[in-house]
Amino acid sequence: MDIHQFLELFVGRWRSQRSDHQFSQENGSDIRSVIDIIALSGDHLEVLAICQKYNVEAIASTQPMQLSWEEESLSSNKPKGKSLFVAVPDPLNANKGLILTDYAKGNYEFAEDESLSIQTITDQGLIEERVWYGNPNLRFRVATLVQTNFTSDRVVSSSKFYSEIRVAPPKP
Amino acid sequence: MDIHQFLELFVGRWRSQRSDHQFSQENGSDIRSVIDIIALSGDHLEVLAICQKYNVEAIASTQPMQLSWEEESLSSNKPKGKSLFVAVPDPLNANKGLILTDYAKGNYEFAEDESLSIQTITDQGLIEERVWYGNPNLRFRVATLVQTNFTSDRVVSSSKFYSEIRVAPPKP
Repeated sequence: MDIHQFLELFVGRWRSQRSDHQFSQENGSDIRSVIDIIALSGDHLEVLAICQKYNVEAIASTQPMQLSWEEESLSSNKPKGKSLFVAVPDPLNANKGLILTDYAKGNYEFAEDESLSIQTITDQGLIEERVWYGNPNLRFRVATLVQTNFTSDRVVSSSKFYSEIRVAPPKP
Repeated sequence: MDIHQFLELFVGRWRSQRSDHQFSQENGSDIRSVIDIIALSGDHLEVLAICQKYNVEAIASTQPMQLSWEEESLSSNKPKGKSLFVAVPDPLNANKGLILTDYAKGNYEFAEDESLSIQTITDQGLIEERVWYGNPNLRFRVATLVQTNFTSDRVVSSSKFYSEIRVAPPKP
């Protein structure tokens, strides 16, 4: 499996369960949501725009997608959001490259064990994410938030574990 | 960091939080426990015995340990247990080898990204585990149970995510 095939499997509707482990407090929580991932063409206007924003050639992107999610909640005001997700492989080594989203530009590495690691520097700190498949219809993710400070200590302030079951195939 | 240094960091008392994601039912649950890990000498009687049981030279083991855990629970009958944990590196490549426990013999692989993967065949199915550190006092684990059947499908029946915070250093 290469990075393109790996990302191709993203496309579809997923039912997601997330467990939050906060290290500043004792409480964890479980959140369920539905995630829709649709493939975009490389010359989609939004893909062109985000590539331009980060000064990247849109033609270099692979399997650009739009992700949208909505949390299950009894309130009428369900938390939801959406973002582009555009991978831009390094032309010399497709196992490394950039991930462009609406929020930030991250770096990815696709490892021999077919896991995708993404590192993104944000206002809150460094987000380290790892994505892998249990099988083609079951996706796992672990995201940790690392506070970078003036010492060399890695202060991890939270981690989230997601298991995501595919509930619908890609739309035709 | 090599496999020995990685395992050395295991030693100590850990406060563990576990999130269970079951795929046969909608419910997840969070379980907290305390884990004590003590280092054993390579010629400890129990280490010798488990190596003999699996027909392995005890002198080949590295950083043998005893793990014991007790779940936090309001009932007086708290779930608890203990097990040996004995890594036996392949003499030609220490990044691969065996993990012997009271329950089974598994195979490990220590990857370049300093994560330890363990595969163990049990009566319940194949247990795939990955262990890594957020920092030296924060350990993460994901364990998935894969049902192997006569088709080539990988049926994952459950996954557990653990975040474990060191609460005490190794005993002297």
